[in-house]
Amino acid sequence: MKQFAIGVDLGGTKIEIAIVDKNGRIQDKRRFPTNSHSGYNMVLDSIAKAIEEICLQNNKLKPLAVAIGVAGQIEKETGIVKYAPNLEWHDVNLQKDLSEKLGIPVSVCNDVKAATIGEWLYGAGKDCDNLVCVFVGTGIGGGIVCDGKMLEGSNNTAGEIGHITIDLHGPVCHCGNSGCFEALAGGWAIGRDLQKAVLKNKSAGELLLTIAKGNIKNITAKTLSEGLKRNNELSKKIFSELSLALIAGAVSVVNAFGPARLIFGGGIMEGMPQLLPIIEVGVKKYALKSATSLLEISPAKLHNDSGVIGAAAFAFQQNKINVT
Amino acid sequence: MKQFAIGVDLGGTKIEIAIVDKNGRIQDKRRFPTNSHSGYNMVLDSIAKAIEEICLQNNKLKPLAVAIGVAGQIEKETGIVKYAPNLEWHDVNLQKDLSEKLGIPVSVCNDVKAATIGEWLYGAGKDCDNLVCVFVGTGIGGGIVCDGKMLEGSNNTAGEIGHITIDLHGPVCHCGNSGCFEALAGGWAIGRDLQKAVLKNKSAGELLLTIAKGNIKNITAKTLSEGLKRNNELSKKIFSELSLALIAGAVSVVNAFGPARLIFGGGIMEGMPQLLPIIEVGVKKYALKSATSLLEISPAKLHNDSGVIGAAAFAFQQNKINVT
Repeated sequence: MKQFAIGVDLGGTKIEIAIVDKNGRIQDKRRFPTNSHSGYNMVLDSIAKAIEEICLQNNKLKPLAVAIGVAGQIEKETGIVKYAPNLEWHDVNLQKDLSEKLGIPVSVCNDVKAATIGEWLYGAGKDCDNLVCVFVGTGIGGGIVCDGKMLEGSNNTAGEIGHITIDLHGPVCHCGNSGCFEALAGGWAIGRDLQKAVLKNKSAGELLLTIAKGNIKNITAKTLSEGLKRNNELSKKIFSELSLALIAGAVSVVNAFGPARLIFGGGIMEGMPQLLPIIEVGVKKYALKSATSLLEISPAKLHNDSGVIGAAAFAFQQNKINVT
Repeated sequence: MKQFAIGVDLGGTKIEIAIVDKNGRIQDKRRFPTNSHSGYNMVLDSIAKAIEEICLQNNKLKPLAVAIGVAGQIEKETGIVKYAPNLEWHDVNLQKDLSEKLGIPVSVCNDVKAATIGEWLYGAGKDCDNLVCVFVGTGIGGGIVCDGKMLEGSNNTAGEIGHITIDLHGPVCHCGNSGCFEALAGGWAIGRDLQKAVLKNKSAGELLLTIAKGNIKNITAKTLSEGLKRNNELSKKIFSELSLALIAGAVSVVNAFGPARLIFGGGIMEGMPQLLPIIEVGVKKYALKSATSLLEISPAKLHNDSGVIGAAAFAFQQNKINVT
């Protein structure tokens, strides 16, 4: 009989759940808002209910296990969410609580690690023992597979490459450090830079302001993509700075971890696919020759599904079931 | 009968060899100049001869094996030195050649990796599964132990943390990238910054020039240490910039790898021990809380011996002998 796991991708604004088989194939999936303001217990209930429903609607499927990728710091042994800033959760025992509700095994891991497992096993990282996934969305997250093992680090926090310093005199990051990779190249930083540039030079920024329907607060990374399509000079300048920051971060990652594959995913990369070849040229030029001679740079392949597919694979693995 | 291995630390200017037991204790050691200009074969001969001599002088000791740490890129499977810039070696089969000369097994590894093994097994990293060693000398080298394993990466090049970008608008590095960690905080960069500052402001730089006996080219990182002792303003300014760069690099390393111990060694750190507490305060302030809650920052313990002790441990390990 075919075995299935449920993969859950729990973000600050939306939750995705999917029924996934051992080959990483999605049989069915759902997406719904997180409503994080309603608090931990309500979010927990909504996940449990959604899992029960999707199983019912799939011939009363009995999944082997569930795993949830959460944007936050997870205690490895217990699956306790130590801190999830977007959800405003501190020390909640998600693994135990959801498992009691559903009556099946539940595992919890970091959302970016789950997405990396997805890309590693079924996506752009297939059959590769040394890879780094860089997901450039609102922030920048990373997952590192080195010598055939996903790095965890002492506190289950290895891979926070959004917070490597690439510009020590650069802008302050949400984390308190200056010049973090994501403070220069994450979606929130792109929005900040665009808004600053428009304020500084209203005539050059007119087009962007129009795209944003006259409200400067609507200017985001998406506006940049639109501005580039219209050949807007200010957008080209910000894009060029963004490219330099992405190259600097990628060079750091390549020199530090020596991956054979560097995989870029996330909304910013999907919205501006022209970034990838620019990063590739920069990395080949500026990273150590010894570290790039075997290096391939690829786009992520699973797109929005990497989180649920990777979480499901994590669920199988935690229950000692081999995945392929 | 007690078992011994020979550890060799092969640098661009000097070679150290030591007879080491399984507990990392040195029984005897020698140091002599590399004379790299004499070419590969002469250096090879001098190492073989020195090993034979030290064994003869130690009751005709028969070592179990030899391992050499080389400042360069090593092919893991063969022990071929792909490239060693300081020695100007390209693709030399050091492992095979020395083994044939000596008639015992020889292994080759990167010198910084050897030093990291030394600190990990017998020094500041003892009993720790997640650590990063940062050696700040003329350049900056690193070795990473993550989840109980020394990282190798796809090309045996993981851990080149001297070449992570910390200042993307910063000075050009020897490697061609801009703003590498070692281009701001390595010994060669400190010398460059001091010389520049003295040239720019001769009266403020007078003391440093005097320390360097009037020759600006003699101004090095050692001069900085001396200038600080004499409360020289220009030295204090360069020291403060150096501290910022070391903090930025350390924050990157801590966020990327999540170590439980961050170990600093090398000539610059030993020459200016006041740097370590400054780095510690900076890392605790600017790295992610989740990554620092378990973090200890320590000085390296084995000093100049980490290379030979670590190489000897590597020799035991390559010959399937447990070390403690």
